[in-house]
Amino acid sequence: MEAKEILKAHVARFASLTDEQFEYFFSFFKRQGFKKGQVIISEGDAVNCEYFVISGCLKSFYVNDNLKMFILQFAMPTWWASDYNALYNDTKATISVDCITDTEVLSLTNDHRERLCAELHEAEHFFRWRTNRGYVAAQKRLLSFMNSNVKCRYEELLRLYPELYNIVPKNLIAAYLGVSRETLSRLYQA
Amino acid sequence: MEAKEILKAHVARFASLTDEQFEYFFSFFKRQGFKKGQVIISEGDAVNCEYFVISGCLKSFYVNDNLKMFILQFAMPTWWASDYNALYNDTKATISVDCITDTEVLSLTNDHRERLCAELHEAEHFFRWRTNRGYVAAQKRLLSFMNSNVKCRYEELLRLYPELYNIVPKNLIAAYLGVSRETLSRLYQA
Repeated sequence: MEAKEILKAHVARFASLTDEQFEYFFSFFKRQGFKKGQVIISEGDAVNCEYFVISGCLKSFYVNDNLKMFILQFAMPTWWASDYNALYNDTKATISVDCITDTEVLSLTNDHRERLCAELHEAEHFFRWRTNRGYVAAQKRLLSFMNSNVKCRYEELLRLYPELYNIVPKNLIAAYLGVSRETLSRLYQA
Repeated sequence: MEAKEILKAHVARFASLTDEQFEYFFSFFKRQGFKKGQVIISEGDAVNCEYFVISGCLKSFYVNDNLKMFILQFAMPTWWASDYNALYNDTKATISVDCITDTEVLSLTNDHRERLCAELHEAEHFFRWRTNRGYVAAQKRLLSFMNSNVKCRYEELLRLYPELYNIVPKNLIAAYLGVSRETLSRLYQA
């Protein structure tokens, strides 16, 4: 499927744009390709864009004071990624985003999103529901961290990303779950 | 300040409603008072409303498989609280909300919010930015859990809720930070 069709089907899940409105909506997006391992946002960067994944897989991650890496999110096709704190508040990135595989995205600047939302009520509706779902996902992620039952977290991960095991190295799955590679192996065999 | 004026000033931070539009917006909210300790949402409940705090303090919390309580959020005046996963997805509550002090709120049902957003573009703009900020706050909360530096988390808490120490018992602050009461005491004296 074409990038444009993928975005169109995604937007149609939440909002009703006419074909003409969608053409206008789409005109603000920029197609970009990144190579495996390429860094899109690095800690300390100014952040101006959010990224809608067409193909491939991104990870957004955080490195803590003890240099331990935590994965906030894997972004597969039709997921969005950015450092939203930095993007919305015009601050420097505290989260990094890079490519687990070769990845194609549609990028949208902050200014263009706000312009679309001001001009098209349905675009604002779309982005409200997009963020509502992101908010709920972030809260579930937080609950999964609070829940000391690693097995539950692992099963939730499989529900959320059924194709993940074919794409993502096991050490990154361990970093997402906040467990060691050995603990993951035990779960994996269970 | 009147409940209506508090909501009006809050909405005006994100959106420009005329006085007439705000009157209409406000007409969907219902004023409710709760006593200290009263439960507003209990795990397993159907969830139909979100709550805008006028006075007092709510906590939203989660009890994990080991019966340990984690506090997701304190909601003080001009904060919103609900189980948004249950509210948006029409599922049973997994998060509970109760009152740390006597609390006055304005409640809004899911249907009324959606109706307001459909009828008033500016209302949709308001709720989009309200949720954008909630999303960023949830992500910061997640990062603070990933960061093993408890001192940083404690200092962030003080920045976020400067008045908290006068309102909330120390054991609840420990439950928010995910540390024992003893660890909190050491930080408190530092």
